[in-house]
Amino acid sequence: MTSKARALYTFDGQPGTGELSIFENETLTVTRKDVGEGWWEGVNGRGETGLFPAAYVEEIQEVSSPPPSAPAPALYPSIPAQSSYSEPSSQSSWGTTTTSAAAAPVAAAHHEPAQQQQGADWDDEWDDDSDNEQEQEKPRGGAAAAAGGANNDRRQLDTFSSASTMGGSQALSVGGNQASVKGNLNRFSEFVKSGTEDYLLGKLKANVPNGAYVVITDSNYGPMWQMNGQPYTCEIFSPKKESKLKGLKTFIAYQLVPSMTNITVSRRYKHFDWLHERLKEKFVLIPIPPLPDKQVTGRYEDDFIEHRMAQLKLWVHYLCRHPVLSQSEVWQHFLNCTDEKRWKVGKRAAEKDELIGGGFLLATKTPPKPIATDVDMEMNAFGTFTKAMSNAVSLVHGSALENAKRHMGPFKREYEKMGQAFRTLGQAFELDPIKFSSGLTEAIKTTGDTYDAIGKLFEEQPRHDIDPMMDTLHIYRGLLASFPEILDIQKRSSQKLRESEKLNESNRLSNAELGQLRSRADVVSYSVMAEINQFHQVRTENFKTMMEHYLEEQIKFYSTIVDSLKTSLNAYRDIN
Amino acid sequence: MTSKARALYTFDGQPGTGELSIFENETLTVTRKDVGEGWWEGVNGRGETGLFPAAYVEEIQEVSSPPPSAPAPALYPSIPAQSSYSEPSSQSSWGTTTTSAAAAPVAAAHHEPAQQQQGADWDDEWDDDSDNEQEQEKPRGGAAAAAGGANNDRRQLDTFSSASTMGGSQALSVGGNQASVKGNLNRFSEFVKSGTEDYLLGKLKANVPNGAYVVITDSNYGPMWQMNGQPYTCEIFSPKKESKLKGLKTFIAYQLVPSMTNITVSRRYKHFDWLHERLKEKFVLIPIPPLPDKQVTGRYEDDFIEHRMAQLKLWVHYLCRHPVLSQSEVWQHFLNCTDEKRWKVGKRAAEKDELIGGGFLLATKTPPKPIATDVDMEMNAFGTFTKAMSNAVSLVHGSALENAKRHMGPFKREYEKMGQAFRTLGQAFELDPIKFSSGLTEAIKTTGDTYDAIGKLFEEQPRHDIDPMMDTLHIYRGLLASFPEILDIQKRSSQKLRESEKLNESNRLSNAELGQLRSRADVVSYSVMAEINQFHQVRTENFKTMMEHYLEEQIKFYSTIVDSLKTSLNAYRDIN
Repeated sequence: MTSKARALYTFDGQPGTGELSIFENETLTVTRKDVGEGWWEGVNGRGETGLFPAAYVEEIQEVSSPPPSAPAPALYPSIPAQSSYSEPSSQSSWGTTTTSAAAAPVAAAHHEPAQQQQGADWDDEWDDDSDNEQEQEKPRGGAAAAAGGANNDRRQLDTFSSASTMGGSQALSVGGNQASVKGNLNRFSEFVKSGTEDYLLGKLKANVPNGAYVVITDSNYGPMWQMNGQPYTCEIFSPKKESKLKGLKTFIAYQLVPSMTNITVSRRYKHFDWLHERLKEKFVLIPIPPLPDKQVTGRYEDDFIEHRMAQLKLWVHYLCRHPVLSQSEVWQHFLNCTDEKRWKVGKRAAEKDELIGGGFLLATKTPPKPIATDVDMEMNAFGTFTKAMSNAVSLVHGSALENAKRHMGPFKREYEKMGQAFRTLGQAFELDPIKFSSGLTEAIKTTGDTYDAIGKLFEEQPRHDIDPMMDTLHIYRGLLASFPEILDIQKRSSQKLRESEKLNESNRLSNAELGQLRSRADVVSYSVMAEINQFHQVRTENFKTMMEHYLEEQIKFYSTIVDSLKTSLNAYRDIN
Repeated sequence: MTSKARALYTFDGQPGTGELSIFENETLTVTRKDVGEGWWEGVNGRGETGLFPAAYVEEIQEVSSPPPSAPAPALYPSIPAQSSYSEPSSQSSWGTTTTSAAAAPVAAAHHEPAQQQQGADWDDEWDDDSDNEQEQEKPRGGAAAAAGGANNDRRQLDTFSSASTMGGSQALSVGGNQASVKGNLNRFSEFVKSGTEDYLLGKLKANVPNGAYVVITDSNYGPMWQMNGQPYTCEIFSPKKESKLKGLKTFIAYQLVPSMTNITVSRRYKHFDWLHERLKEKFVLIPIPPLPDKQVTGRYEDDFIEHRMAQLKLWVHYLCRHPVLSQSEVWQHFLNCTDEKRWKVGKRAAEKDELIGGGFLLATKTPPKPIATDVDMEMNAFGTFTKAMSNAVSLVHGSALENAKRHMGPFKREYEKMGQAFRTLGQAFELDPIKFSSGLTEAIKTTGDTYDAIGKLFEEQPRHDIDPMMDTLHIYRGLLASFPEILDIQKRSSQKLRESEKLNESNRLSNAELGQLRSRADVVSYSVMAEINQFHQVRTENFKTMMEHYLEEQIKFYSTIVDSLKTSLNAYRDIN
């Protein structure tokens, strides 16, 4: 199913990465939206196909579509999951049957089928892509879609700018019921799907156990997540090839040792994948770092496994470092559970969690005072920042990838060619029957070998310096791709608040209701601002580490070259 | 004027150098023979044009040509200077008018016009190629052509193998005159043109001043040139742009300071060129290192002048190091003469030198006993060696040239791309309005600059390591290209000796005459063997120096990279 989109911004695709460069105002045909990590696939006017950030384009509404006054779904003819969303039952239950009290069973109703599905393929290969796709496309209950049930579709994120524009015009249509602000007609915005709108409108209620609260405090930098409990770390090591069903199925199990227990747990990639889905579902306003890409072929090769472990290490480190994520129940369960039965219980509990999506905001405690700063300005500034950083990260990623290829290809060959040339010279000198200087002949042949060895160093170097750098950049590409959506949710929340203020002015909303709505909108803004500050803090740590490690490895690399050249030079000095 | 040639050996042309790869038995169309340094230009069957070593091919005799019994010149229809050589006067005077006593005036007769020509363009630009070509094509007197007069045509050297094959069959035709061995019919072989044949046949006589003798002694390695006089060195420095004719003509003058006088002389490239011609003319059995290539455009750019000086330094060093060349009068005159008038006198004397070509052998003293070793075997072994070394030198030269291009192009760009990527990342981080870590931002931008600087190091590096290596290789390509001809002269000399032995057996040559011819053939073989040993000795020195210098510069280069990366890393360490 294809649709048209207009590029809002220019995006420089990196050659060789499957990315497509797009230019402002260019019209694109979107061919896939389920690419993941905020990317879409499309074709430009020159027939070139590739991936581009969904946030950089806006979908073009077909001119032949009914005017805006027609039912909302018709405005979005190209969204794959549309059929399930346009069921009459879903339509009719919208904004009326989803009451506050219904939120908990709604979440459960959504998760039951998902859990059954999960249970059925729990033992399947972790990187069997088809299972995942199936999951993404399965129809969901209409009510579930309204209250955070569509979190699995977050990959099909609306574009930041287009969504806010379109959503904005829709959000102003206010219903006749004076007692409540009506739901947003753009039911495909994450604002609605995640249940944030329901939370804002006071439609969600849940029991929050005392320990389940997350707290935002004010700091010099502004709102910050408060760290609950002791900070900890987690090591990953010894990926093991394990098998079941008498060897019919083999898989790799990674050994995790969290510092708070020092007890080893064994986890497979599919466990990480399951956890990742839960975290994305639960934390709508916190970007979850992406897992390493799936790879079907060669997945048992030692290099691949070692590299994947290094990537998972970064992922785990990011989660451990985050005040909210590190304390979340599902993550703790993943890190600590060693018992098969308890694992299944915890797994089911996580899949039944009520405090997900908009519901999680019920468990968020903010400073009692309203936000002092100009939130809109800060959000805009951060939007500009993420766009620039996203471009820069893509540039570094693409340059590093290209650099690695050059190291492994032309650079290596260039040194090998010099090595071969020197060796050929040494071999020619061997033909001197008088053997004027066999010492020189040997030294030259040794130099040939040295340059061969340097060629091999060039070939192997990327795994020491560029691979780790690209692993960090991979995480940041994923994180950065999540922010447009998060900023969009906050924007829509602010808009909803302004609508409500107008309703209040025209006496269609009570002061009490407006007050509650305002403090809930503040929870949204506080959360986003806390996450922005968290992001900046961890970003500086991660990029410092990344750059230091890269430079350290580069220094080691060139030092090794210097040492081997010195050894080679000594062979000449020893000639008498 | 084109001719056909058959490839005797496979030659791997280096891509990007204008060389043409040729394959054994391939037929080529020869388009130019005046390329110089033993190279010919031609087209292969696939229409590819390029240069190849003349020694690797043999010319194909046209089937439509008259049979071998016809006049000899018809066998070589394609040699450009043929018209002057086939003059009737030249034909009739061959082997009869060229008497021993005629040798001295013959040499003078040759040099007079050459000197006039030289005198006329002495003040012209040294690198005006057209003058040289003119010189090569100007007709010479027939007698001069017979006795060393064609030395300027050495560039049009016959191929080593083809010449020896063709010459061999010709050399067996013995004339009816019992009293003397007849001249070789292949008058285009250097053996004949250089006057070596005349020397061998006892046709040359000259007054050799006492100090003009060169001496060959026996050593552990075999025959060696004896060093006459003190070894010395010569520095070149301060190339100066000078002008004459009120600034109408500008040129570069190099300052030479030989260690034996410590007096500075100023020499231009055209002086070097003149000297080079004299040396080639005089020393038929000693390869003269080639001068740096002429270059018309950009010749006053500082880089070019500096590089040319470095090349001339190598050239001068080679001459100073050689026992025979270093003591030769013309070279001493070039090194020491500071007076304009004395310069012209010495110049004229050099151009009138009798002891050139075959004549030089009159001034060569060998050990009194006949050569003990198997000369033919040694010559063959050295022929094999030079061929292998020639290929290896071409390979190293081509690889180094390619390597330099990569350094200055793709390698440089690769580092600059990384630099640009890091700088872009730093610029993106600057957009963080809270300025979480301006230290990190600055450090990343600095790293960007560091990689830019490394890119520039890569660009500049070839002049420090590859250029000097290629300069040495340039000299050796020239030297190696001269050896096929030298070995060919020795081979023809041996053949002439064997013919004479047969004449003696059939009583057509007296024992006394044979004895003289044998000792003269020994002078040729002693000279070639002395030069072979000299070559090996200097080769080991030069290649040791070349490799050491290359490795030292490579070590410096990579150490500089390590240092700048360490500085860049420190910027991160300093972030608090």
